Amino acid sequence: MMNTILKHRSIRRFKSTPIPEEELREMLEAASRASTCGNMQLYSLVVTREKAMREKLLPCHFGQQMVVEAPCVVTICADVHRFSMWCRQRDAEPAYDNFAWFLTAATDALLSAQNLALAAEERGLGICYLGTTLYTAGDIVRVLNLPKGVLPITTLVMGYPDEKPELTDRLPLDAVVHFETYNDYTAAEIDELWAEREESELTKQLLAENNLPNLARIFTERRYVKSDNVAISQAYLALLKERGFMNQ
Amino acid sequence: MMNTILKHRSIRRFKSTPIPEEELREMLEAASRASTCGNMQLYSLVVTREKAMREKLLPCHFGQQMVVEAPCVVTICADVHRFSMWCRQRDAEPAYDNFAWFLTAATDALLSAQNLALAAEERGLGICYLGTTLYTAGDIVRVLNLPKGVLPITTLVMGYPDEKPELTDRLPLDAVVHFETYNDYTAAEIDELWAEREESELTKQLLAENNLPNLARIFTERRYVKSDNVAISQAYLALLKERGFMNQ
Repeated sequence: MMNTILKHRSIRRFKSTPIPEEELREMLEAASRASTCGNMQLYSLVVTREKAMREKLLPCHFGQQMVVEAPCVVTICADVHRFSMWCRQRDAEPAYDNFAWFLTAATDALLSAQNLALAAEERGLGICYLGTTLYTAGDIVRVLNLPKGVLPITTLVMGYPDEKPELTDRLPLDAVVHFETYNDYTAAEIDELWAEREESELTKQLLAENNLPNLARIFTERRYVKSDNVAISQAYLALLKERGFMNQ
Repeated sequence: MMNTILKHRSIRRFKSTPIPEEELREMLEAASRASTCGNMQLYSLVVTREKAMREKLLPCHFGQQMVVEAPCVVTICADVHRFSMWCRQRDAEPAYDNFAWFLTAATDALLSAQNLALAAEERGLGICYLGTTLYTAGDIVRVLNLPKGVLPITTLVMGYPDEKPELTDRLPLDAVVHFETYNDYTAAEIDELWAEREESELTKQLLAENNLPNLARIFTERRYVKSDNVAISQAYLALLKERGFMNQ
């Protein structure tokens, strides 16, 4: 297990080889063993394998080809619908149509997603999380026919790797770990934490390609820019309201 | 790994035995290998081991004794502060103070949390996630000195188990997995999915103790009631605003 965790790299090129049914089922079973609030299992995993359906998901993920190349796309959803339906059938009045339960359901969903990812990697499959899920959640709702009370949080593309990327660098462990309380960073510490990455060949190449003076500006001016961030935020908040998660 | 995943049960009684420093570091290293949006690592793990500090966290978790009994409490935080600080030091204008980036950072945080949980369980430690983190996030911010741009999402209590609970039942796998698109449930299917749990001895005991006619009403009238859900939702949304995640 530690080996699987430590060797994780996102895979973006896949063989079309399908995942055997029984193996997929075992991975999904692993997903269902993750911790869940009050054992309520407030998530759904929508497994899309038919090519025609994955083609419908493709624009939701900005045309990233792995969505159609990999054999299996799993949309990870926060889901209070199923539990609420059960409550109503038992004359119990569910009150999970609010923001606290969106967060709780999203937590359930993401813990199970990581179990699924690791169970897949343990078998030699590759995975990639798609952040685009948040950007186009409203479209995904329509494509996957998600009822009110169900919202996509992330997507896992899964399949057999057709590339062998290097391990991605990470910030030094001390960047993300604090002891006792949050130890805020000095400017010098921030410089130090990013130093290795900023000096890397990859960064130099990116700066040349983008004609920008530093790596941070590639993030703020190319990858994740303000106007997009604001639009995505507004759209997802509107969706939360429309799909019944903002009754508080 | 599969064995660790499949054998997971939440542990709520712990020995006071400390976790050796080097082992803890390896588990945190495992956490840092999880997938993260754009390799931005938008999370912080606050590891609280001093008893006096854990006592301060105790009321935030409604007095659950494991917070002081276990040797290690890790508060899992969404964190756009560190990355934004780096951007500002590079004359790049960060625009991650909005809801989309709260969700992205929370996703990063939760995937790393599950890596941490599994790395701990793989070594024979026990873990428990504390949902109370969302209820009292504002208090946790104060206790742990979290700067603006950092919010707690969940908490992992970690240590050596002092109990051996049975595996928790889960809904049948078909309850949480959908193929191709979301296959909404019929009333009969909902009945069937919950049948085994509703008929269990544990449920019968709970109904007798609570003097309620069915399990769903234990959830809606005892465990997670509307007035609390609404209050928690409002408080967390206010906190998002106050801590700089709602500028969209």
